[in-house]
Amino acid sequence: MRKGSLIVVSGPSGAGKGTICSAFLEREKNIAYSVSATTRAPRAGEVDGKNYYFVTREQFESMKEHDELLEWAEVYGNYYGTPIKKIQEKIAAGQDILLEIDTQGAMNVKRRFPNGVFVFILPPSLDELQRRIRGRGTEDEKTIEKRLGASVGEIKMASDYHYVIINDEVETAVEKLMAIVTAEHCCASRNQELIDEIAGE
Amino acid sequence: MRKGSLIVVSGPSGAGKGTICSAFLEREKNIAYSVSATTRAPRAGEVDGKNYYFVTREQFESMKEHDELLEWAEVYGNYYGTPIKKIQEKIAAGQDILLEIDTQGAMNVKRRFPNGVFVFILPPSLDELQRRIRGRGTEDEKTIEKRLGASVGEIKMASDYHYVIINDEVETAVEKLMAIVTAEHCCASRNQELIDEIAGE
Repeated sequence: MRKGSLIVVSGPSGAGKGTICSAFLEREKNIAYSVSATTRAPRAGEVDGKNYYFVTREQFESMKEHDELLEWAEVYGNYYGTPIKKIQEKIAAGQDILLEIDTQGAMNVKRRFPNGVFVFILPPSLDELQRRIRGRGTEDEKTIEKRLGASVGEIKMASDYHYVIINDEVETAVEKLMAIVTAEHCCASRNQELIDEIAGE
Repeated sequence: MRKGSLIVVSGPSGAGKGTICSAFLEREKNIAYSVSATTRAPRAGEVDGKNYYFVTREQFESMKEHDELLEWAEVYGNYYGTPIKKIQEKIAAGQDILLEIDTQGAMNVKRRFPNGVFVFILPPSLDELQRRIRGRGTEDEKTIEKRLGASVGEIKMASDYHYVIINDEVETAVEKLMAIVTAEHCCASRNQELIDEIAGE
């Protein structure tokens, strides 16, 4: 049986990775979402256990100590991390998993899961990125400036990913992500057993 | 500007690569078809300059001598070859090109175009492959047995390709090929200029 793929979607704040991932999961019912743990406060509409596991700093520190996290990072004073055990179980059972994560976390995941599918969501331009972050209205000016300053460096990291998708139109971006997952399922390296079977071995 | 991709579709006789490629080109009007030259006789319905350039052995020998072929092979006593110049020009101009070719030719192309996208069409099973080749009714029994004997060895070569597609249903197979081309357009390695541009460099 073919193992599942870990699909890692990342990009700078404001590129729209959250919107794309939500729309993607709506369309691809067979793909499970990897829920991260975080110490940051929930935003309006966010649900514990669905968007994130919202945990205290003490709880997070305990997970770190017991090596229960695939990766973790401290971003703007908050912890974010990915519980490792469920991912491993699901991939072994042939389940594809989507992991939406910031760029710092994605590169940590790549070291542990080099066979993952790493996708970077690009904004159409830096100007557009700035408009989106300001438009969201959830961060104060200081945080916004911090994020924008980090974005250029993050965008340069796109070369370390397998795929890049420009998010100028959400529906098009989602279709590209769906195509990437379909193509990955066709990778010869992921289908060696099948090739042997058809060759009668 | 992003360069075009050379999409190489191959597989054993009877796997259905011709049917898939025709349906694919119907759907993807932006992709050009690389027409091969051959010395074999046209089959019913095949058009010179569209399906193949049908040439004499003398003409083919001359193309070989003048290094005008990307690759060439002698299969079951007939020559097949790919005129190189048009492919290079189109790729440089950003045009994607589909090249349907036998497995021997595909590996020769891979040495010259390692950045091509190599797709192997698999039959659902060896039994089904046999049914299809016999059903075609265009070859005599001796040729059919020759082809079937070669098929197992060819299928094992699928591991040398980037992608494999099982042709159990033509429409599904075509959609997978379309997804592969879309995914390849998103490859980070093919979009370095774009990444630099968005990062403001």
